[in-house]
Amino acid sequence: MMSDKPTLPKATRRTFLKGAAATGTGVALAGAAKAEGDPLITEVQSWAQGLGDGVDATPYGLPIQFEGDVVRRNVEWLTADTISSINFTPIHALDGTITPQGCAFERHHSGAIELRKEDYRLMINGMVDTPLVFSYEDIERFPRENHVYFCECAANTGMEWAGAQLNGAQFTHGMIHNMEYTGVPLRTLLEEAGLGAAGDLSDKWVYIEGADASSNGRSLPMEKALDDVLVAFKANGEALRMEHGYPVRLVVPGWEGNMWVKWLRRIEVMDGPVESREETSKYTDTLEDGTSRKWTWEMDAKSVVTSPSPQSPITHGPGPMVISGLAWSGRGRITRVDVSKDGGKTWETARLAKPGEKMALTRFYLDTEWDGGEMLLQSRAMDETGYVQPTKEALREVRGENSIYHNNCIQTWWVKPNGEAENVEVS
Amino acid sequence: MMSDKPTLPKATRRTFLKGAAATGTGVALAGAAKAEGDPLITEVQSWAQGLGDGVDATPYGLPIQFEGDVVRRNVEWLTADTISSINFTPIHALDGTITPQGCAFERHHSGAIELRKEDYRLMINGMVDTPLVFSYEDIERFPRENHVYFCECAANTGMEWAGAQLNGAQFTHGMIHNMEYTGVPLRTLLEEAGLGAAGDLSDKWVYIEGADASSNGRSLPMEKALDDVLVAFKANGEALRMEHGYPVRLVVPGWEGNMWVKWLRRIEVMDGPVESREETSKYTDTLEDGTSRKWTWEMDAKSVVTSPSPQSPITHGPGPMVISGLAWSGRGRITRVDVSKDGGKTWETARLAKPGEKMALTRFYLDTEWDGGEMLLQSRAMDETGYVQPTKEALREVRGENSIYHNNCIQTWWVKPNGEAENVEVS
Repeated sequence: MMSDKPTLPKATRRTFLKGAAATGTGVALAGAAKAEGDPLITEVQSWAQGLGDGVDATPYGLPIQFEGDVVRRNVEWLTADTISSINFTPIHALDGTITPQGCAFERHHSGAIELRKEDYRLMINGMVDTPLVFSYEDIERFPRENHVYFCECAANTGMEWAGAQLNGAQFTHGMIHNMEYTGVPLRTLLEEAGLGAAGDLSDKWVYIEGADASSNGRSLPMEKALDDVLVAFKANGEALRMEHGYPVRLVVPGWEGNMWVKWLRRIEVMDGPVESREETSKYTDTLEDGTSRKWTWEMDAKSVVTSPSPQSPITHGPGPMVISGLAWSGRGRITRVDVSKDGGKTWETARLAKPGEKMALTRFYLDTEWDGGEMLLQSRAMDETGYVQPTKEALREVRGENSIYHNNCIQTWWVKPNGEAENVEVS
Repeated sequence: MMSDKPTLPKATRRTFLKGAAATGTGVALAGAAKAEGDPLITEVQSWAQGLGDGVDATPYGLPIQFEGDVVRRNVEWLTADTISSINFTPIHALDGTITPQGCAFERHHSGAIELRKEDYRLMINGMVDTPLVFSYEDIERFPRENHVYFCECAANTGMEWAGAQLNGAQFTHGMIHNMEYTGVPLRTLLEEAGLGAAGDLSDKWVYIEGADASSNGRSLPMEKALDDVLVAFKANGEALRMEHGYPVRLVVPGWEGNMWVKWLRRIEVMDGPVESREETSKYTDTLEDGTSRKWTWEMDAKSVVTSPSPQSPITHGPGPMVISGLAWSGRGRITRVDVSKDGGKTWETARLAKPGEKMALTRFYLDTEWDGGEMLLQSRAMDETGYVQPTKEALREVRGENSIYHNNCIQTWWVKPNGEAENVEVS
């Protein structure tokens, strides 16, 4: 249990379930005997006797009816007004790293708007050589790039500052998604307008606005604007969904989701930040003494066990099981994830499904044995900067308990002997 | 035009559209003047004045109504019977590499069946130490992996053996998709059953069957079965769709789609291939002399320009444009893609959006200038084995014209001065 390497090296995988059965831990392994008596495999079933449904009637397919619970969900009391809402990704039911657009979280401040490509315009103005207005088609004519990035709302896990409040990974950590974006570097469009007029770029900013009623204006330092920001028009290969900013949104890798302005309308080059509503009354972190941390754009390294979790209990007996979760960092690659079954006393290093990629979700697995007893499950992410995800206790010591945003603490699920799990805190 | 490096190095990108405008090629670039007169950017629009739609009513989201044409399509005359059908991916309208499940091609031989996880069983029998039957939950308890792979039907581009027949990349090349799969290596399950009884594995095979009425049985050499084949239950993070084999399908990287058996029911270890219906009367390649190539499992390197193409015409005037397409190889990584505008006389090397990945789609771009004249657009893929995608002429010389399957020839689109494109052959 204290091992720092994957716990199921290939040598032990050969007799994985059989081994468990042989030691009498009660794995419901279906063997030859069961095969003989199980009509689901020995008898011809109804679905093998007729013609199944075609899919011609559903040219754009949806999940099968049996997966009807794998959907976005909101928490009605979470937003004070009736205008805005948050719809969380069902991360407890997903695997791998890509989030399908259909169930990818969305947060809006004044509704999701329907904006036709033909009506779309993007203005670049302010301290530029030539103010420009681009149509959708103009943007498509510039060299484009593809990148997979996570987008996390700054308020993700925000309710947990006040204690273990929301009983499910979807609600505690589901304001995140991870998609393959296609878009034009913002740098390309800024250089098209010309940055000579801006002079020294090191102290310049851009102000970004959306076309919806909230406009959701945010200030972005020029250094980031010229680095890896994308003016994106596709996600996972297809057009952005309405609720993700169709037809064009900003992609700001590693930085808080609110800056990923949807229905992108205007980018103004300025000699300082605007200090807009969205970066003063919101999206700053109120500390114990009442002062606020501002410009906290980068999402620190974080992780969560997605299964088992309150919405994804263990439904089998003791024996082999996979503990799975997600890790990410706004500062680069995830290099390691540890998992604890005893509330952080001892740790095992999880297996990363693939080497971590910059500012993208990393899937981790701990292939392990469950003894049937209770567990206090935690995960702890590390990124390439050497940063280690902190405990909630450590985070509260620094930030106090007035915050809403940027809670990247270690999450604990109390898994009970009956396989159910609950959101708890350990001290 | 004869250059073998990307044609738009960074130095020339700075004044990309402006440069074009300055040379008088007629790019509809919206500049400051246009900004002053364009009410879509200067006036407050209706969508910025009210509350847009929420998405609470659509917990599983669909594409916005304006993208209603980005759907799977079939070609009614393509399949002789009314039982089976093919629904093609709209690759002409997609970008990046990931295919959303909702519009990912599907081919079935007797309909798509609705099979509950609770009713799911997978038997492993034949020359194994212990025949086993796994439930869905059993499979989830083994160590799992994540990989992005393309799946291409052996009949993709099959109609084009007879000439330039289908007018659109969706129909000529749309029997392909590319998803991130989560699953358990088939090797793990075979070793769980025990392969000692099979003796020397080098001449052994597995026979794979689906649970639908067609059963779609296929023989697979043991070497491949123990290599990279996955017993997969998720695609792009979520459960497989019904039409993609929910709840479990086989993933056979780089090999023809028919072997990716859906609704996977049984895997039998055998001392030879079965020579089943699906690998004799179908999925063999009839040559000029009437004999057949069989066991043509690997999908050779191939590519196609997806835009512009017949369903994705050029809608702007001369000047900067992006020519985009997809390349893939069942034998490993794509290392290079060339694009020709003159029917194969001269070639330019395209930019790969990312380094090629093994048996996964690679997106390529040629950032170029359109002179407003006609083009005979082609793309030519190369893979890490050194293989070069052949012309249709070269392929016909070797295979004759009786084939249906495994047509990986270079495709030609005739782009006309009005921007429309047509499927043609060049000689």
